[in-house]
Amino acid sequence: MIITLKKNAPQVEVDALIHHFEGMGLKVNMIHGDNWNVFGLVGDTTHLDERSILANQWVENVQRVQAPYKLANRMFHPEDTVVDVSGIKIGAGQPVVIMAGPCAVESKEGLCEIAQEVKSAGAEILRGGAYKPRTSPYSFQGLGTEGVMDLVEARKRTGMPVVSELMSVDKLDEFVENVDLIQIGARNMQNFDLLKAVGRTNKPVLLKRGMSATIEEWIMSAEYIMASGNPNVIFCERGIRTFEKYTRNTMDLAVVPILKDKTHLPVVIDPSHATGDWKLVKAVSLAAIAAGADGLIIECHNHPEMALSDGMQSLKPEKFADLVQSARKVAEAVGRTL
Amino acid sequence: MIITLKKNAPQVEVDALIHHFEGMGLKVNMIHGDNWNVFGLVGDTTHLDERSILANQWVENVQRVQAPYKLANRMFHPEDTVVDVSGIKIGAGQPVVIMAGPCAVESKEGLCEIAQEVKSAGAEILRGGAYKPRTSPYSFQGLGTEGVMDLVEARKRTGMPVVSELMSVDKLDEFVENVDLIQIGARNMQNFDLLKAVGRTNKPVLLKRGMSATIEEWIMSAEYIMASGNPNVIFCERGIRTFEKYTRNTMDLAVVPILKDKTHLPVVIDPSHATGDWKLVKAVSLAAIAAGADGLIIECHNHPEMALSDGMQSLKPEKFADLVQSARKVAEAVGRTL
Amino acid sequence: MIITLKKNAPQVEVDALIHHFEGMGLKVNMIHGDNWNVFGLVGDTTHLDERSILANQWVENVQRVQAPYKLANRMFHPEDTVVDVSGIKIGAGQPVVIMAGPCAVESKEGLCEIAQEVKSAGAEILRGGAYKPRTSPYSFQGLGTEGVMDLVEARKRTGMPVVSELMSVDKLDEFVENVDLIQIGARNMQNFDLLKAVGRTNKPVLLKRGMSATIEEWIMSAEYIMASGNPNVIFCERGIRTFEKYTRNTMDLAVVPILKDKTHLPVVIDPSHATGDWKLVKAVSLAAIAAGADGLIIECHNHPEMALSDGMQSLKPEKFADLVQSARKVAEAVGRTL
Amino acid sequence: MIITLKKNAPQVEVDALIHHFEGMGLKVNMIHGDNWNVFGLVGDTTHLDERSILANQWVENVQRVQAPYKLANRMFHPEDTVVDVSGIKIGAGQPVVIMAGPCAVESKEGLCEIAQEVKSAGAEILRGGAYKPRTSPYSFQGLGTEGVMDLVEARKRTGMPVVSELMSVDKLDEFVENVDLIQIGARNMQNFDLLKAVGRTNKPVLLKRGMSATIEEWIMSAEYIMASGNPNVIFCERGIRTFEKYTRNTMDLAVVPILKDKTHLPVVIDPSHATGDWKLVKAVSLAAIAAGADGLIIECHNHPEMALSDGMQSLKPEKFADLVQSARKVAEAVGRTL
Repeated sequence: MIITLKKNAPQVEVDALIHHFEGMGLKVNMIHGDNWNVFGLVGDTTHLDERSILANQWVENVQRVQAPYKLANRMFHPEDTVVDVSGIKIGAGQPVVIMAGPCAVESKEGLCEIAQEVKSAGAEILRGGAYKPRTSPYSFQGLGTEGVMDLVEARKRTGMPVVSELMSVDKLDEFVENVDLIQIGARNMQNFDLLKAVGRTNKPVLLKRGMSATIEEWIMSAEYIMASGNPNVIFCERGIRTFEKYTRNTMDLAVVPILKDKTHLPVVIDPSHATGDWKLVKAVSLAAIAAGADGLIIECHNHPEMALSDGMQSLKPEKFADLVQSARKVAEAVGRTL
Repeated sequence: MIITLKKNAPQVEVDALIHHFEGMGLKVNMIHGDNWNVFGLVGDTTHLDERSILANQWVENVQRVQAPYKLANRMFHPEDTVVDVSGIKIGAGQPVVIMAGPCAVESKEGLCEIAQEVKSAGAEILRGGAYKPRTSPYSFQGLGTEGVMDLVEARKRTGMPVVSELMSVDKLDEFVENVDLIQIGARNMQNFDLLKAVGRTNKPVLLKRGMSATIEEWIMSAEYIMASGNPNVIFCERGIRTFEKYTRNTMDLAVVPILKDKTHLPVVIDPSHATGDWKLVKAVSLAAIAAGADGLIIECHNHPEMALSDGMQSLKPEKFADLVQSARKVAEAVGRTL
Repeated sequence: MIITLKKNAPQVEVDALIHHFEGMGLKVNMIHGDNWNVFGLVGDTTHLDERSILANQWVENVQRVQAPYKLANRMFHPEDTVVDVSGIKIGAGQPVVIMAGPCAVESKEGLCEIAQEVKSAGAEILRGGAYKPRTSPYSFQGLGTEGVMDLVEARKRTGMPVVSELMSVDKLDEFVENVDLIQIGARNMQNFDLLKAVGRTNKPVLLKRGMSATIEEWIMSAEYIMASGNPNVIFCERGIRTFEKYTRNTMDLAVVPILKDKTHLPVVIDPSHATGDWKLVKAVSLAAIAAGADGLIIECHNHPEMALSDGMQSLKPEKFADLVQSARKVAEAVGRTL
Repeated sequence: MIITLKKNAPQVEVDALIHHFEGMGLKVNMIHGDNWNVFGLVGDTTHLDERSILANQWVENVQRVQAPYKLANRMFHPEDTVVDVSGIKIGAGQPVVIMAGPCAVESKEGLCEIAQEVKSAGAEILRGGAYKPRTSPYSFQGLGTEGVMDLVEARKRTGMPVVSELMSVDKLDEFVENVDLIQIGARNMQNFDLLKAVGRTNKPVLLKRGMSATIEEWIMSAEYIMASGNPNVIFCERGIRTFEKYTRNTMDLAVVPILKDKTHLPVVIDPSHATGDWKLVKAVSLAAIAAGADGLIIECHNHPEMALSDGMQSLKPEKFADLVQSARKVAEAVGRTL
């Protein structure tokens, strides 16, 4: 960590700071500039808080050199991590995995029907929301436990593992028992109690990026899960909030090479939420695979115009099948399979 | 609600839509344009979901005319709401209320000391975090229950009601019993289970704006609490995330007149988080009062450079006292007291 | 255009508005709601300004149904436009075109050397800035006319058409005479005098997206050029400004299918500025082609660490050659050539 | 400037870098860390480009300690600058100055009428656009030279100096001759040729912040003007672009104390463009004064609903007069006059 001091800092304050950091087991080196002085702290600075140091009135600037995450850090874990979701392997050059299904589970039969269709088209994991985070208290909030049980039934009939969003710690047992991959939604990316809770299980976790989360904050949320004991984290980009109005969110595909450089964890892309418009899903899906994504999670519905939520971004099965065909070609072009 | 249909929509599809909306008890009026047709839906459209309607391939556009919130809506509740926090009244032209105290509770004695100081300077409510949402799992996470008990002790000694952040439903009873004003933090503004839970109590709630929440989404989160039965909601702006790097967040002061126009609830401003820099807190605090805010919540610390979190944005007691003096003059200039 | 009136609008005001719009040759239809009334305006509303209508105190809301652009609108020009840059055809399923070269022209020999290298690797158009928009007045501002002449020399030696940024109307003649494709930079996307000036020539224009421009504003800037008489416009996405700090800008790849849906003009992607980091350029380039882009514009430099500007995002020739190889495979996977 | 090198940087590369910087007259100091090495450069680093240094593959990170601006920097110019606009003094504790008038000049008589009204109400400078930057080529583009002459006439009749926006270098002489304060609009904040051109005059310049400009970029644009020889620069905040939809832009009032800390130049606020809604203008104006602004620039129109541009954000004269009354009280509360 590099700390810039104001030139006029009294020597007694400088000495106090040196003493403070040395007391934490850090080695302090110093550079004298014309208008400032600089401390370099050598040692493990992960526990230091930049903003606390900045509170000192003689400090001008603090720069972290070492990333604030350790368990997720590729520097300390050079090999790619492969996450196993009930037999489906994700990450590290494994075949690209497609997760698909309705935004919300609406009925057992509807779910099983679409599950069969997306499986035939090439999906390997079934998605479906049982608990739905909705902006309005007057919107459909999901079927709850009944929806989870419908997912279990669909898995029984199709053999596909299931992924669903957990919104609250008190449903954790239900999810550990019944769901193969626990999704943490964008709105809960910094619900730290929930992160710690899933971190105490060994279930794979699909960690969506918060709407306005920096990549570093996102990695820190993965670090929360890993620091609680669960190494099975998959990142899922779903677009960030910007000023643009033609799309629901702005897909940030540079995250794929960045996360692969900074961490060792798999990266999945959600083109449905990122764009909010089924007409854009195919183009963005192909782009994601070309960028190196390890998987896609795509909303499909047999009758999008009747969907209880997010019909606008749901693909019909035949369009989904077409997407998978094209995705396979792009995957091969970049040296992957699907 | 105004729905624009594509010009080439087949009559059978148009009829189906009309039938669908009429089945929901809405009256449907129609305008024929050159390149489009328009439905006007007359009746209560609060339960309709724009994005579901947009899923219909013949729909070009949907515009909500009526706001999607009812209980928070000034149209249906023209009188200003006053929220009573253990005797301190907030809103509706009541004196401007100042809440102050440390970011995090760090020790009973430290808390009681700063509580006395901010009280002497003019604060009426004591703030202090017992559970802290921290980006890093390696940062100080708060004293937990011990911190809540320290707040109780500080209240006993000073007579000031206390406000503290609730991060998780399983601590709700602890907060209902011990805290006067429950804060829902920015990261949990759309933690809907938590909103419903505080909605089932009758404790006043300080609802912070999410980092990238639109004003409408923020009002909808208030609506969640109110729809669960609790009308005692106070909005708290703490800045939004933008590209600007000189401040931690960008304070959006236009929210004050907007919220006062669209809702009947009180509005409080948090200049400490909005700017992230104690040197900016005074100017922004005075601006907030001039804009019509009903209160301020400000971080203070006796030794900011030793604070376990956010020392950088904490005021020392003497600077806080100076701020209150100036704030009083501005309040009077806009016809309020403090 | 759909105009929502407040329910309490006096009849005399409503009649005045009807009269006003009918006087503009528009047909006015009306819907009566419970809490509002709605006008539908039938006819050409391109010249109406939403914000002027909103200035009327009885107007609640204005929604444009028809897009505000005409010449760039696919609805009125269903065929894809192909722009011919001195023999290189861009758009409409033509082979993907790669433009490459240094950020700034630094010397004639250096430019000719890199030009030969990118040509051998597969680039068809040479890029190079002679006039450079720099944040600091103390940074290298480009070689000016000398740089333009160096581009002319490089074209002579390699046969490649050249693209360069025009920053000011007074250099227009120099560019019309010497440059094959005139670039309008992000900072000048709404320099309307410059847009009108290039619109009065018939040179192809590469119109970069402003840092915080919506897609609609960007199309409107193309409309300025086209309305001045020049139909040869190519869009170029170079990333938008967001809160994310790991990349210089956030690449918005959804623009590719959106622009192809709403307009008939070609779309090129600039991965160098979008990411600001050469290590990310390859992944984002492949993604762009998979998304359907008609071309790429990429910064290359023989000695990036010695570049006078933006060395950080410049590829060395061998990495560029590798990128082109991979890009060719992705282009073929999506049914294009390169 | 602090440069962090990767630990595995070969000694020959490190030596080359040291040699490079020493060749530029800088002194190089070094800190050795466990995982990295750090250079501290001592001397004038204003001419160094961070991104060029980052292009070196062995460089991990670059941090600028000294601000990249000199002439605008308070560190080298501790006294507040007062800008004199034809006798009206702005900055440095002078009375708060109010500029008001129509968005666009529409007719001589209309302009003179509103000029008299805003003068009576307390405005000291008359605003009015003769050249208008409009998103659409089909919108009213301003009266041009005729509009400038109308401003001259209004000044003759009222004695008020006038401010108007210059969009293009070829109108510079017209503005130098006829206008008292030259406005550079948000869209041209980084039109560097225009900045250099006004920098070569000695006219006061009102420099608006770009829609997505950081404060540092904004100061750098002031530095362009100053480095060309013109020290008379006034900053004008007009809101930045964010995701929020209830306002046209998001007013960032923290710029007032920040600019006053980092620079010595006056700061004016434009609440009309910042909010885009006349109903919000008063609250935001009072807030701006409380925050320490040196002036306001406000749009007024006798018949906003007939305005050719931006009627929605224009105040009627009586509301403007009321605003000035309240503004005076707030100015006094913070120790200023108006």
